[in-house]
Amino acid sequence: MTLDRVMTFAKKLLTERVISGDCVVDGTMGNGHDTAFLAGLVGDNGKVLAFDVQNQAVENTTTRLKELGLLERVNCILDGHENVATYLSAYEEKPLRAAMFNLGYLPGGDKSIVTTPDTTITAINVLCKKIERKGIIALIVYHGHEEGKIERDAVVSHVSQLNQKEFDVAKYEFINQVNDPPFLLLISKK
Amino acid sequence: MTLDRVMTFAKKLLTERVISGDCVVDGTMGNGHDTAFLAGLVGDNGKVLAFDVQNQAVENTTTRLKELGLLERVNCILDGHENVATYLSAYEEKPLRAAMFNLGYLPGGDKSIVTTPDTTITAINVLCKKIERKGIIALIVYHGHEEGKIERDAVVSHVSQLNQKEFDVAKYEFINQVNDPPFLLLISKK
Repeated sequence: MTLDRVMTFAKKLLTERVISGDCVVDGTMGNGHDTAFLAGLVGDNGKVLAFDVQNQAVENTTTRLKELGLLERVNCILDGHENVATYLSAYEEKPLRAAMFNLGYLPGGDKSIVTTPDTTITAINVLCKKIERKGIIALIVYHGHEEGKIERDAVVSHVSQLNQKEFDVAKYEFINQVNDPPFLLLISKK
Repeated sequence: MTLDRVMTFAKKLLTERVISGDCVVDGTMGNGHDTAFLAGLVGDNGKVLAFDVQNQAVENTTTRLKELGLLERVNCILDGHENVATYLSAYEEKPLRAAMFNLGYLPGGDKSIVTTPDTTITAINVLCKKIERKGIIALIVYHGHEEGKIERDAVVSHVSQLNQKEFDVAKYEFINQVNDPPFLLLISKK
């Protein structure tokens, strides 16, 4: 290890911030790797709200969580993350302190189904409003595919305009790698 | 604190990497704040080679180090960091594991005297060659001044071309702040 990869860096920050009993959001369930990580952080009294628009993602994640004995900590939701506000309302007694997104397509799945700027930005806006102070939204942006570049530009442009009195927005990226490596966007409420 | 400022992040990484007895380079002594920090890391048997082209910087730094009882750990050199190779040769028995630069002008000094792309890149090249594996070169880039933008572009372009098989090069920056906030470049040898 020389410098932390973007995912490692994101996980370190979330591990520092999330407290047992919190509510956290996994905006892109995918194959459930991050969902399981987040379920580990929130403990038995916490809750992960995990979203995906693909059945395959929900199935893969459910299987993984069952194997790990973590399924009870997670609400696996077959819906777009743009509807996060609807689901959050049931958990208002739990502090929302973190959210995580992998923007792009489902690894090993249908590469034509990708996250899109509009829904991603809607979800970010809801989470920015609902998240606790010092809470972190981590977005790992995969932009190797054509639509990925459009989403990247739209999301970066949007979060760059978040009021600096209310939010820190940082970007962590490797700048000497070929093939559009993923980079990390971090939003933290002051 | 929500997200680490660029200087805090750089110092955390150097604190993790530098081992007592190491040699480290402060490419831009300035008022000696970072020199003192580095002197703390290398211990009684280590050495900081600190460079600046301005007498005022060497004087300010020497005064600070004396007050802190750290002067013996530092070689305060009134010369440009592009000549770092000449001075390093006297310390070859000590592993070179870190270097730090603040690119821009001396805070509180003559704002017309600034670091320049050519000398900065020469220093980076020497350090990339001499530094140990896992060693880190941290550059905090102040680019609010006119020449700062030229230096920023030249340095970012140069380090972006470092071979990814030999080096990790990462950028950490706040993207929602006005007034050209400084950003961090990190180079680590694999």
